[in-house]
Amino acid sequence: MGERKYAVILGNLGNTCDRFCSGYKKNPPALEMLKAAAGIPHVRGIELVGSWDIRPDNAAEMKRALDGHGLACVSIIPDLFAVKEFAKGAFSNPDAAIRNRAITETRRMCDIALDLGCGLINLWPGQDGYDYLLSTDYEHERELECQAVRELALAYPTLRFALEYKPKEPRTHCYLARMADSLLLAQETGCSNVGVTMDTGHAFAAGENPAEAVVLARRAGNRLFHMHFNDNYASWDDDMIVGSVHTLVYLELLYWLDRCGYAGWLSMDQYPYREDAAGAIGESIEWLVAFDALLGRHRAELDQVIAAGDPVATSRLMRRLFAPVVR
Amino acid sequence: MGERKYAVILGNLGNTCDRFCSGYKKNPPALEMLKAAAGIPHVRGIELVGSWDIRPDNAAEMKRALDGHGLACVSIIPDLFAVKEFAKGAFSNPDAAIRNRAITETRRMCDIALDLGCGLINLWPGQDGYDYLLSTDYEHERELECQAVRELALAYPTLRFALEYKPKEPRTHCYLARMADSLLLAQETGCSNVGVTMDTGHAFAAGENPAEAVVLARRAGNRLFHMHFNDNYASWDDDMIVGSVHTLVYLELLYWLDRCGYAGWLSMDQYPYREDAAGAIGESIEWLVAFDALLGRHRAELDQVIAAGDPVATSRLMRRLFAPVVR
Amino acid sequence: MGERKYAVILGNLGNTCDRFCSGYKKNPPALEMLKAAAGIPHVRGIELVGSWDIRPDNAAEMKRALDGHGLACVSIIPDLFAVKEFAKGAFSNPDAAIRNRAITETRRMCDIALDLGCGLINLWPGQDGYDYLLSTDYEHERELECQAVRELALAYPTLRFALEYKPKEPRTHCYLARMADSLLLAQETGCSNVGVTMDTGHAFAAGENPAEAVVLARRAGNRLFHMHFNDNYASWDDDMIVGSVHTLVYLELLYWLDRCGYAGWLSMDQYPYREDAAGAIGESIEWLVAFDALLGRHRAELDQVIAAGDPVATSRLMRRLFAPVVR
Amino acid sequence: MGERKYAVILGNLGNTCDRFCSGYKKNPPALEMLKAAAGIPHVRGIELVGSWDIRPDNAAEMKRALDGHGLACVSIIPDLFAVKEFAKGAFSNPDAAIRNRAITETRRMCDIALDLGCGLINLWPGQDGYDYLLSTDYEHERELECQAVRELALAYPTLRFALEYKPKEPRTHCYLARMADSLLLAQETGCSNVGVTMDTGHAFAAGENPAEAVVLARRAGNRLFHMHFNDNYASWDDDMIVGSVHTLVYLELLYWLDRCGYAGWLSMDQYPYREDAAGAIGESIEWLVAFDALLGRHRAELDQVIAAGDPVATSRLMRRLFAPVVR
Repeated sequence: MGERKYAVILGNLGNTCDRFCSGYKKNPPALEMLKAAAGIPHVRGIELVGSWDIRPDNAAEMKRALDGHGLACVSIIPDLFAVKEFAKGAFSNPDAAIRNRAITETRRMCDIALDLGCGLINLWPGQDGYDYLLSTDYEHERELECQAVRELALAYPTLRFALEYKPKEPRTHCYLARMADSLLLAQETGCSNVGVTMDTGHAFAAGENPAEAVVLARRAGNRLFHMHFNDNYASWDDDMIVGSVHTLVYLELLYWLDRCGYAGWLSMDQYPYREDAAGAIGESIEWLVAFDALLGRHRAELDQVIAAGDPVATSRLMRRLFAPVVR
Repeated sequence: MGERKYAVILGNLGNTCDRFCSGYKKNPPALEMLKAAAGIPHVRGIELVGSWDIRPDNAAEMKRALDGHGLACVSIIPDLFAVKEFAKGAFSNPDAAIRNRAITETRRMCDIALDLGCGLINLWPGQDGYDYLLSTDYEHERELECQAVRELALAYPTLRFALEYKPKEPRTHCYLARMADSLLLAQETGCSNVGVTMDTGHAFAAGENPAEAVVLARRAGNRLFHMHFNDNYASWDDDMIVGSVHTLVYLELLYWLDRCGYAGWLSMDQYPYREDAAGAIGESIEWLVAFDALLGRHRAELDQVIAAGDPVATSRLMRRLFAPVVR
Repeated sequence: MGERKYAVILGNLGNTCDRFCSGYKKNPPALEMLKAAAGIPHVRGIELVGSWDIRPDNAAEMKRALDGHGLACVSIIPDLFAVKEFAKGAFSNPDAAIRNRAITETRRMCDIALDLGCGLINLWPGQDGYDYLLSTDYEHERELECQAVRELALAYPTLRFALEYKPKEPRTHCYLARMADSLLLAQETGCSNVGVTMDTGHAFAAGENPAEAVVLARRAGNRLFHMHFNDNYASWDDDMIVGSVHTLVYLELLYWLDRCGYAGWLSMDQYPYREDAAGAIGESIEWLVAFDALLGRHRAELDQVIAAGDPVATSRLMRRLFAPVVR
Repeated sequence: MGERKYAVILGNLGNTCDRFCSGYKKNPPALEMLKAAAGIPHVRGIELVGSWDIRPDNAAEMKRALDGHGLACVSIIPDLFAVKEFAKGAFSNPDAAIRNRAITETRRMCDIALDLGCGLINLWPGQDGYDYLLSTDYEHERELECQAVRELALAYPTLRFALEYKPKEPRTHCYLARMADSLLLAQETGCSNVGVTMDTGHAFAAGENPAEAVVLARRAGNRLFHMHFNDNYASWDDDMIVGSVHTLVYLELLYWLDRCGYAGWLSMDQYPYREDAAGAIGESIEWLVAFDALLGRHRAELDQVIAAGDPVATSRLMRRLFAPVVR
């Protein structure tokens, strides 16, 4: 099952604001955040957000810094979500000029990715969606979304494009809302280098069981390209420490990632508003390490209870794993 | 935009129980329910549930009764959800003997459909899913689900098979949970006579905007085959009168059904636990008739606000349609 | 922190149906279920549902059977939820005759409780609520609800009446929906023998954090009288095995039950539709025993992290408790 | 049923950001926003947020400007939610120095309110709550919350303090989460000048039916002091135009506001991220005006269907009001 590869999105180490408060922390310079990330045990890769962390003007410097820390650039995330101009859509914007700027910005990041030896573009078109009923031409905008992704995938055949789905925020409805609709769009592009990023918190908020969604992706042509990890209370993207709300569901997810042959990165994506960022991210990884240790020691038993289909037997095993009564 | 065709599921006219109370009403004989259904204004079609309403032994009699009332048999719904034997799955049951009985039972209904001149089988495999984490081989069971549907679709190429999705109940997780995953499965069968039934209440409970889901189905090969109508509070399948909770969303849905060329039936699927059944079902249809009247009179304006993408303009139009202030 | 006292609702050992299927199991006679309950490790008490399990005609026999097994009758739950006549309300029914029959039935159970030496009546007026908007006089019905509870509490001052809240089902909206509104009603009766039953699954479905709700009850005059345990996916009352979905939340709940001086029973309330009932109920208790063992060994550390208010420290402790990495 | 009084929160006319984008608009000066607000039909009152809109240094100027537009200052909302220092709580902060600064800041606003002839302080202690399990002393913090409110209410007996509840955001759990728990706290202060603000969007997100919550407030001592209006999809505080998602629920709410003798303001509280602010706020008011017109013309019929308890009759009336089929 190969060793797990852990990464973190660089900005998680910086300031995180909400819509009321412009930030609970200071925002350190990128290289300082990189140093903090490098200090988190198990971290071997970094995700960079376009413009915020990486631009043509600082790409060479960033590469040197990554190399200096022995860190890989795992993915680049073009900023399609925090730009005022994309307020009513980036790839799906009916205004051709704005849509083209979104595609151009993404191409700029693809070029940097090639320079940095980074093979994955994580596309989170958070503004592509709608807020109000009866105010949007869903058919037209979905077609535009599909065309933009196809255009990029054809233009950069050596890169992999991972569509990150999320049901809502910043729009009340996002087009890439769940695993299955993102797979439909990926298939519709006709490009095998288009796949999906699962963010565990987005999956919870979408009402999905992550493990089951992983199986959907495998059946749709091995299209799970990337993983973001965090936790929440299942109604909103709270971006919390892994394991702080859910427990068994992560064990099941890791089990099925293995069963489905997932060999990509496990990247942490959190908003530690009020917590020490490195501490909170580090905890997420340590939980995953701990779940993996259990998985490693008990894989055969897990195979058995999954095949048996008897929840009482599963419960018994889970108690033995997570809460053994020491007498 | 052709005239709308309204139908009703026969059993809605009978007793409806919940898990505590074995029924708040009496359960009249099928032919009596049929008479009541025929008396609801606008109703021209009936859906029959296998075993409950229609069996080899009563098919001829049922056909005569339908003809007598001038009603079409719109679809047959094999009973894959209320049979004790299918408790842990029908089409997806890992026990080959049980799975085969589910397929056999469905074939029996396909044969009756052919006899009755009914072109649609509504598949609601409500027991196909799971309840507990780490107790199910999702990959194997999804494969079985897909194979069963493909086998039926190939065996009855003149029938259309509509997969009715629903996120939960009776299982805590059903395999056919949402529009997009049902479309994936329909495509996976490779059969063009496999499509989807949208139940508006299931869509609400799945967190979907029905109009957007209709567009998904059109883009995936015109796979919206059938429609069930009811209303709820969006967290559970309350099976209430259309329009009793949601309003604008139905107008938008009907608009997009037209835009996507839907020419199928609008079938009522309710559980009027404590209400007069014919009255409650009749109200649903009357709401749809009223929404359609608004749609017919204001289609050009709706086209406009949908193209404009300005929610303030949409709101102004909606007020004019639904709550004009008479001075 | 006295020893925990575990109980089970008798009917959980029997047949459990849903609204589609009239039952996945056989329904054994009450005394057979009692024997099965007695065989579950740690069980020392039983809850009985009025009419189903206990009536004037079998009360003496039931008492002998309970005594024979060394089991206490923990509470009696009058059947206010499964009686056709109460379809539109029991205590809150605007029809005085029906309301009086609900009160009379409850009095009948109070009398039996006194005979059996059972000090608690668990009131779950599941039918008291409403389904549709603009169809109910909330003010009048809430007043009736309050009066009925007050009348009973005054008539039986030596019994304690625990209001079991639940946000929905069988009605789409139940009057006793959450902890806080139930506390308001309890206070409004002016009777100190009126309190609340928390069912953990109802609390999850109501969007509550159970531990916080326990604190609310303490602050409102020590009104937490009884506890029902089960688990679910937080959108519906799935009535599953404790610990099968949630983990940390139970540890926190037990911690705050102690902090708030709760000395009542921990009673299992499940619907093991497709599972071995005794096995599923037994698992719930074993999880609680395991959580309690952790709580007992680490109470000082829990005090510390709760006082510290640092989620990173809490996470570290939780990992150590639930998933220690053995090297 | 006196005439309705409409107001708006001043900042709604300005920039509105989300956690990703620092704003989709420009933020005009307060007096310019005031002019825009004054231009919205029906608006007669303004709510001001402490520090943002109103401070000791600009209070006199603001008063002149309000007078100049013929607008009342409806309420002042102390900024307890956007101040970095209150990240882990304002009134409930275990750090006495921080808690005192929150109280001092609120007192400062109370003084200004007295100067401006404004009788209501809208308390939204959004940071008072918690994010993670097992990291908070709920009992201690709730006690602090209660003490702070009591201290303020006693210190300013001529002002009314309205607690604005909301289940989550910016914390994952807020202490003032729903109507009933806010009423419990209001009662606990022992002060009759402590009541509640209902924000319709917060009520939806809390799973409440607003009309029923209004009845709760009346029964708990006429404690509904203030109303904020907006709409959303019931899972998050989307702060949208009234009537854009829900319809009947607003009619029912206005009906029960009258039945319960509510004579306060109807204040608009929206985040028109991508819309013309004055247009979006104006639409909300026009919807309320339209609902009120229906209410005024059909009050007797509404009384009737509410008393009748027959959802079929209610549906028939609603169709006649909202979607009459013109032949």
